[in-house]
Amino acid sequence: MAAEMTVSELVRRARDGQARALGRLISLVEDGSPRLAEVAAELAPHTGGAQVVGLTGPPGVGKSTSTSALVKALRASGRRVGVLAVDPSSPFSGGALLGDRVRMQEHATDDGVFIRSMATRGHLGGLAWSTPQALRVLDAAGFDIVLIETVGVGQSEVDVVSLADTTLVLLAPGMGDGIQAAKAGILEVADVFVVNKADREGADQTVRELKYMISLGRREKGPSWRTPIVRTVAARSEGVDELVQAVTDHRDWLIEHGELDARRVQRAENEIQAVVAARLRAEMGELRGGATLAGLAREIVDGRSDPYRAAEQLLADLRS
Amino acid sequence: MAAEMTVSELVRRARDGQARALGRLISLVEDGSPRLAEVAAELAPHTGGAQVVGLTGPPGVGKSTSTSALVKALRASGRRVGVLAVDPSSPFSGGALLGDRVRMQEHATDDGVFIRSMATRGHLGGLAWSTPQALRVLDAAGFDIVLIETVGVGQSEVDVVSLADTTLVLLAPGMGDGIQAAKAGILEVADVFVVNKADREGADQTVRELKYMISLGRREKGPSWRTPIVRTVAARSEGVDELVQAVTDHRDWLIEHGELDARRVQRAENEIQAVVAARLRAEMGELRGGATLAGLAREIVDGRSDPYRAAEQLLADLRS
Repeated sequence: MAAEMTVSELVRRARDGQARALGRLISLVEDGSPRLAEVAAELAPHTGGAQVVGLTGPPGVGKSTSTSALVKALRASGRRVGVLAVDPSSPFSGGALLGDRVRMQEHATDDGVFIRSMATRGHLGGLAWSTPQALRVLDAAGFDIVLIETVGVGQSEVDVVSLADTTLVLLAPGMGDGIQAAKAGILEVADVFVVNKADREGADQTVRELKYMISLGRREKGPSWRTPIVRTVAARSEGVDELVQAVTDHRDWLIEHGELDARRVQRAENEIQAVVAARLRAEMGELRGGATLAGLAREIVDGRSDPYRAAEQLLADLRS
Repeated sequence: MAAEMTVSELVRRARDGQARALGRLISLVEDGSPRLAEVAAELAPHTGGAQVVGLTGPPGVGKSTSTSALVKALRASGRRVGVLAVDPSSPFSGGALLGDRVRMQEHATDDGVFIRSMATRGHLGGLAWSTPQALRVLDAAGFDIVLIETVGVGQSEVDVVSLADTTLVLLAPGMGDGIQAAKAGILEVADVFVVNKADREGADQTVRELKYMISLGRREKGPSWRTPIVRTVAARSEGVDELVQAVTDHRDWLIEHGELDARRVQRAENEIQAVVAARLRAEMGELRGGATLAGLAREIVDGRSDPYRAAEQLLADLRS
């Protein structure tokens, strides 16, 4: 049935709130379906309405719990919420699907919530490629807010965070010293800091360290936004209303300063480049059934060529 | 002086053990110098001799200490050792340079050791691109072993690890439960497991968990390699000789099974693709002074186009 359904019918149903159609559309983009281009074209006129909120932080800081608490708070205010849980770490485990099921139970009876885990599948450009497309599906389906939750260490996660209009960086007391946190490289991307587990010892110190870091003025997120620090105990939903307020404030600020549009144009540029790169990468692998690339690699291993010369030759082939 | 030196002279000096020439060559590749292609061509005939050992694991597990202990043990056996410390996390902090200096002190008087930190510079393809080139410099300079140390969470680090002939995954007791470790996604890439801080409580349990995981047979690293688990206390150099032995055993195994060559051909393919992708990405950004990409992105944000259609148009322009 679904397999025979036209893309425009799937999009219509997804916009109508049908979770199955929504899931099927995301699978189409994730799996690199031949109908990808058609899906993208059908979605385009309906996109742009969702506020995209990234949520990241080191393992153990309470990201899943915070996401759940945020979903509840946003639902209480009547907003429809989509969640993309991005787990770039495990290409093999299939853990993402399990995680999906556990989380879904909590909101199983609420069709104003849609949760999907994105795991690396090895198709095309991986998560850097499939996550923005899944985001476009949820955006077009009419969700007011899409939360993108990621593990917060490493460049690929920072890339994923770059999809967001507003990025929340979660920390917790006692996660190790400030230097270790700074090494995680996630502080610079924060629009809002969240100190979760704020009832624990050390919360004041974590807040102090963040304030100090902000005061160093090394973060340049725009002309006048002062990155707030919100204390939460997500497991008891404490501070979550304040967090929702901070998210709303940031959106207002983005719009007022023309930053929302600027970020989205930048995001679209990245998406175009990712699609082009994935296409070219596929073409490279396919040149003469892969023989060209393998032959050039052989020459490098034997010391008869180098990556630059090989790249020149491959580019010439791609263009001929 | 150095600026006017020919590339072939720099390579000659680097092969002669001159640290300054070595550093300058790495800077050339890191900074995307116009002389990149020349550097690569000069290095090529001298590459292939170094064993490349990746070293990864979650923060706090003792990677720096273990690297230092390994360097000492390898030096004691007369081998020349290069170290690339890859820190993809912080594009802004400049922490890499500081780390360099701290580490260098320990081996400052030993010209059989060269240590370099690689930080994201935003040039071209970033670390995924500059690290393999820096590796080629050290390889061509005649180091017997190059250690690549990375923060162990996230796809980009896994990519970096894919440069290695042999990958060591470090864990420590009490770093959180096994599931958390599995989520880090670094278990699958291990050729050798290292349980560092093995004098701490919980070491036996960590070893048991690893054994159990290995017994599940979900790791497929080749026909017959049995991933060993080595216990170390790197801060006191305990178990490090056993670790060196495991690294040597793995190299022997790789050669015997034709896997060394297979991994290196794969690595060369990845390098070629990375160079091509970086080149095309630069060209995309430059088309009509960036106006093409920006214009296409604008259409997407306005809902008048989508990433696939835009990519088609850009590709047509790139090829015309």
